[in-house]
Amino acid sequence: MDRLPGFRDFYPEPLPSREVGWSADARQYIFDKWRDTARRYGFREYDGPPLEPLELYTTKSGAEIVGQLYNFKDKGERDVSLRPEMTPTLARMVAAHQRSYKKPMKWFALPQLFRYERQQKGRLREHFQLNADIIGESDTAADAELIALLIDTLRSLGLTEADFVLRLSSRNAWRDFFASHKGDPAREYEFYQVVDKLEREEPGVNEQKLQTLGFSLVEVMSIIESGKPTQELETILESLSARGLGDYVRVDYGVIRGLAYYTGVVFEAFDRKGEFRAIAGGGRYDNLIKLISGGKADLPALGFGMGDVVLLELLTARKLLPAFNNALDVFFLVEDESLRSDSLNLVQALRAASLCVDFSLTPAKPDKQFKRAQELNACYTIKIERDPTEGLVARIRNLKSREESAASLHEASHQMVSLCRKPHRLEPI
Amino acid sequence: MDRLPGFRDFYPEPLPSREVGWSADARQYIFDKWRDTARRYGFREYDGPPLEPLELYTTKSGAEIVGQLYNFKDKGERDVSLRPEMTPTLARMVAAHQRSYKKPMKWFALPQLFRYERQQKGRLREHFQLNADIIGESDTAADAELIALLIDTLRSLGLTEADFVLRLSSRNAWRDFFASHKGDPAREYEFYQVVDKLEREEPGVNEQKLQTLGFSLVEVMSIIESGKPTQELETILESLSARGLGDYVRVDYGVIRGLAYYTGVVFEAFDRKGEFRAIAGGGRYDNLIKLISGGKADLPALGFGMGDVVLLELLTARKLLPAFNNALDVFFLVEDESLRSDSLNLVQALRAASLCVDFSLTPAKPDKQFKRAQELNACYTIKIERDPTEGLVARIRNLKSREESAASLHEASHQMVSLCRKPHRLEPI
Repeated sequence: MDRLPGFRDFYPEPLPSREVGWSADARQYIFDKWRDTARRYGFREYDGPPLEPLELYTTKSGAEIVGQLYNFKDKGERDVSLRPEMTPTLARMVAAHQRSYKKPMKWFALPQLFRYERQQKGRLREHFQLNADIIGESDTAADAELIALLIDTLRSLGLTEADFVLRLSSRNAWRDFFASHKGDPAREYEFYQVVDKLEREEPGVNEQKLQTLGFSLVEVMSIIESGKPTQELETILESLSARGLGDYVRVDYGVIRGLAYYTGVVFEAFDRKGEFRAIAGGGRYDNLIKLISGGKADLPALGFGMGDVVLLELLTARKLLPAFNNALDVFFLVEDESLRSDSLNLVQALRAASLCVDFSLTPAKPDKQFKRAQELNACYTIKIERDPTEGLVARIRNLKSREESAASLHEASHQMVSLCRKPHRLEPI
Repeated sequence: MDRLPGFRDFYPEPLPSREVGWSADARQYIFDKWRDTARRYGFREYDGPPLEPLELYTTKSGAEIVGQLYNFKDKGERDVSLRPEMTPTLARMVAAHQRSYKKPMKWFALPQLFRYERQQKGRLREHFQLNADIIGESDTAADAELIALLIDTLRSLGLTEADFVLRLSSRNAWRDFFASHKGDPAREYEFYQVVDKLEREEPGVNEQKLQTLGFSLVEVMSIIESGKPTQELETILESLSARGLGDYVRVDYGVIRGLAYYTGVVFEAFDRKGEFRAIAGGGRYDNLIKLISGGKADLPALGFGMGDVVLLELLTARKLLPAFNNALDVFFLVEDESLRSDSLNLVQALRAASLCVDFSLTPAKPDKQFKRAQELNACYTIKIERDPTEGLVARIRNLKSREESAASLHEASHQMVSLCRKPHRLEPI
């Protein structure tokens, strides 16, 4: 029996095979960086259900996403859908309880998202995203703060301005363009959809699509090629420059974003070499909370999503993903079975002192136990021995330096804590 | 628009209301403790898809769980189900790649699980679980190690032997009983199901059900009331005593577990006052991997699941859940707008030094900014001032001690790092 197509299993490293396995450790490494950076920026974590009423998506997100919904009828005959994106859930939650939170609200989440896309090589039906949003601030200072977070999140993973660039754009620029060229207001979103696909379609197809909307490819390309920042983009660029992040951004009106609900500044981050799909993308959606709450709440908002799949591909290609291993502090050797009870007691004391400790559950030859300690990448081995004069003694051995020391059973865990780095988290080696 | 019934929204603390909100911070606090304890025991993290082929559950898990599956047909006409439990996914993953891992494998996961239960007060349709399993070891030493992990996980949250007890039992004891009383082998699982429900049903109902299987309630109760440990349970108790965990366990044959696949030792943890449902439960399932892999892999295994909902109720009732708040290191005051660029630059430097920093995105009166710093529970405020002799100076203020100091812009982030605890994680205050 196999897993469903388009879904991933996450295995502990070392991975059984590149083909089948995704690294649970690499995923956790990325999640830790995502959380850590968001918290440094003062963002607070939230989460919603992975299953939502279908209605939450059908009218707000745009045609493309609705066609790929993982929707079904539940046993209570409700039309439901696995969440394809987080923003509608956030808007629903904010609309329900925004009165209890001071503005601006800076919130983030790490949801798993689902889309029933046609199966293609490397196209998955689920992925994880960092979603970060600022709610209740219409000033472009919020756009700059959010974009700075996006950039710093990628920098925390070792990526530099040589690796990626954030393409900054604005629907306001396009709205002005559309209005000044007398576009049909009823077909404005349709026009944005064409602009969104310009880079992925043939020029002939683009020309034809634009003509049916009353535009020519040349005039559309002229605004893209100008790259002249609007006043709102100018203030964002200034804020990012003040933070020393100016080199990570360029104005690029070729970005417009596919989702229907964006209203202002939009942006996407890409690798500089152009080898991968977008690393992250987002923008302003000042009307969505009003729309979802049926007018009960009305707050400006903006946010971005950063997926784990493209990010993992990019980090792997740039050799920025560390190797992970057990990183055990202590492997406890039980060479004398009559001392197993005493050994278990000390194992317990070491673990209580926050050390990561493993041992052979059943009797095994000393060399086999030692080999296991090495396989598990332990920093130290400890064993209890009977000393003719001192009674039971803990013998400690550093597997890297081969230094040895001894301690009474009473002092052993205290001594080990000073030897090992104390608060243990899974760190790259 | 509301969320689906039986699903939870997780909000940042302070919570808008006890009624509607679940705390995202409390959830993360529990997840951190779960991860940390499992790693101290040498367990490695894995994960699988939340959606699996329906077939994975229908024949292996037992009638009760199958009746509550969140299953549907996907757009490719596949029968699929949201995962109601993690063990079948683990068995599938292990069966596929166990050759690449040394035994015993000690693995854990923190899955969200789904059951379409009839709506009752407080009954949810999703919850999160710590799932920990040991694969490839048939010795009872593995059972003791797993149970020790379960106990220490609860202890890491502040619960003691006065708060909970692990009721230890074994299907082997029941199998012997069933065989020696000449039960019909074809109805053995049916018999276990009755035993599993003894405490929740009326004695009359139990008596009647047992009689149809050829047993009397009196003889069934006699084995439960004896409480005499079998040899296998005796060795587990000894191992737990050696670790100083003897007071957390008692033999209790009233526990048998509802799932079909358990084969040996089984156990459940309950609060001592008996106010809540089981906090955790698990046992051996030595045949499941063989069953799921169609005979390709055959490994003894055991595991437990610990849900977040009962745990949160218990921690709340015992006042063991800390209050969480922003725990911002620095709130940056921008009192002179002409210094905003310099302020942004220092904000960036502080965040790059791993500090959690927030500030007012738009111009605001000094007292309003200071109030915001207090609301966000900041440890320090910093502001840049023009000094007639020294140029720009960073003024640092400790909001608790009210101590003030000054630093050059160049030295400010270095000084703040020494003032604040360095590696930031969300900690209870």
